[in-house]
Amino acid sequence: MKREITVVKVGGNVIDSQDALLEFISVFARIPGEKLLVHGGGKVATQIASKLGVESQMIEGRRVTGDEMIDVAVMTYAGLVNKKIVALLQREGIAAFGLTGADGNSILAEKRPLQDGIDYGWVGDITRVNAGFIQQLLGIGFTPIFCALTHDGAGQMLNTNADTIANEIAIALTGHFEVKLNYCFELPGVLQNVAEPKSLIKEMNFPGYQKLKKEGIVSQGMVPKLDNAFRALSEGVNAVNILNMDSLSQLINNKNHDGYTRLY
Amino acid sequence: MKREITVVKVGGNVIDSQDALLEFISVFARIPGEKLLVHGGGKVATQIASKLGVESQMIEGRRVTGDEMIDVAVMTYAGLVNKKIVALLQREGIAAFGLTGADGNSILAEKRPLQDGIDYGWVGDITRVNAGFIQQLLGIGFTPIFCALTHDGAGQMLNTNADTIANEIAIALTGHFEVKLNYCFELPGVLQNVAEPKSLIKEMNFPGYQKLKKEGIVSQGMVPKLDNAFRALSEGVNAVNILNMDSLSQLINNKNHDGYTRLY
Repeated sequence: MKREITVVKVGGNVIDSQDALLEFISVFARIPGEKLLVHGGGKVATQIASKLGVESQMIEGRRVTGDEMIDVAVMTYAGLVNKKIVALLQREGIAAFGLTGADGNSILAEKRPLQDGIDYGWVGDITRVNAGFIQQLLGIGFTPIFCALTHDGAGQMLNTNADTIANEIAIALTGHFEVKLNYCFELPGVLQNVAEPKSLIKEMNFPGYQKLKKEGIVSQGMVPKLDNAFRALSEGVNAVNILNMDSLSQLINNKNHDGYTRLY
Repeated sequence: MKREITVVKVGGNVIDSQDALLEFISVFARIPGEKLLVHGGGKVATQIASKLGVESQMIEGRRVTGDEMIDVAVMTYAGLVNKKIVALLQREGIAAFGLTGADGNSILAEKRPLQDGIDYGWVGDITRVNAGFIQQLLGIGFTPIFCALTHDGAGQMLNTNADTIANEIAIALTGHFEVKLNYCFELPGVLQNVAEPKSLIKEMNFPGYQKLKKEGIVSQGMVPKLDNAFRALSEGVNAVNILNMDSLSQLINNKNHDGYTRLY
């Protein structure tokens, strides 16, 4: 029988509030068995960049990660945020271990090629997850805590979306694990109407998603997350849920839950 | 026979210059066998603090690490500097792995008690190095890269002198390794006269050091480093050298070297 692992991605909005972060830490710590966390950066990178006088360059609504901005990302994601999470998990008795994709060469990426002639800077598209290494870390009893950074193998750190990292790690681990992937964020799941928590979509399969996407019912912000998530399912990840902290807590404790979005 | 390991501490002045850092990376990468690096922070923390408007509070000439300053230290040491070194070592084919003392609970410390009623803030005195864990990391083929941060086990990161970290790790590893400890910095070694490289003291034992200290010949800045270093020797570390990059490079390649300070 394969080992089981729970992969959790936690969103920036959860990390931004100290209270929410502490609650999340306590929920994550209580997940039984082997587990792995991927966290986003939250607003702190933008705040630090602004204080340092590093301007967020935007081209056609998309952020460009320049030389100074990748330094800010490394400082805040791998430094401030990652170590805060690691130290708090250690307090809960979890053998947490913080990583970027450069550490142990765990996630290799390549700088995103020009798109329509636009250079988005130090943004990385993942080319390889070193699953053997992550397995070794888990095997000696550690809980890996990944931030949203990869590297190119040539000395350059790259900014990579945390959802994508969670997804690619989950897929890479399917060779040796039964993998459950939980996208934990501030909403109860995928909503038909973002303003209405009761419009939660409790189950969704790929054809259903395609239909909702076509009808414009799934919001633009959810599309990359769901594209990622359905790819994970099709690549062998055993379960994918999109949920908030309360439901994650109820789910891992086998309690009745307030509802979440289960993909199938 | 015990395994052999080379522990290197590299000073902030080496890290501050991009050229010197690249040269150091290439020297460290060529050290044969198992190895471990501890790096200082360099001036970048002070620069970032100043840009962020975080004042360096000094009491009687000693720095106080307040709430904002420990965040700056975590950002720069564990983020910017550590990941730059890790990514550059990966480029050299070294399976580098960046850590703070919180990661894997590798170095526990306690907040320094008040001294003469003065609170120096988030500064940590090491209470335990998790040698078993460091050994496991080395055992699966990784090269640990430590920055100058520890934690208190209760969720708080602490600032700890990099020389002391190198020293305590070296001592903790003596149970399972023959340990060579190299303090690599910008000077050729311990000098009788800091302005005169030719005044290099090539060998020094503890009584000799005590004499030079009494006579005021060893500069104030060197005293904590040498106190640390002689403690390492007395605790079973097999060799301790104080040297610059050129001598380190010559030493590991068994070439004639320009001279360094060997403690015995």
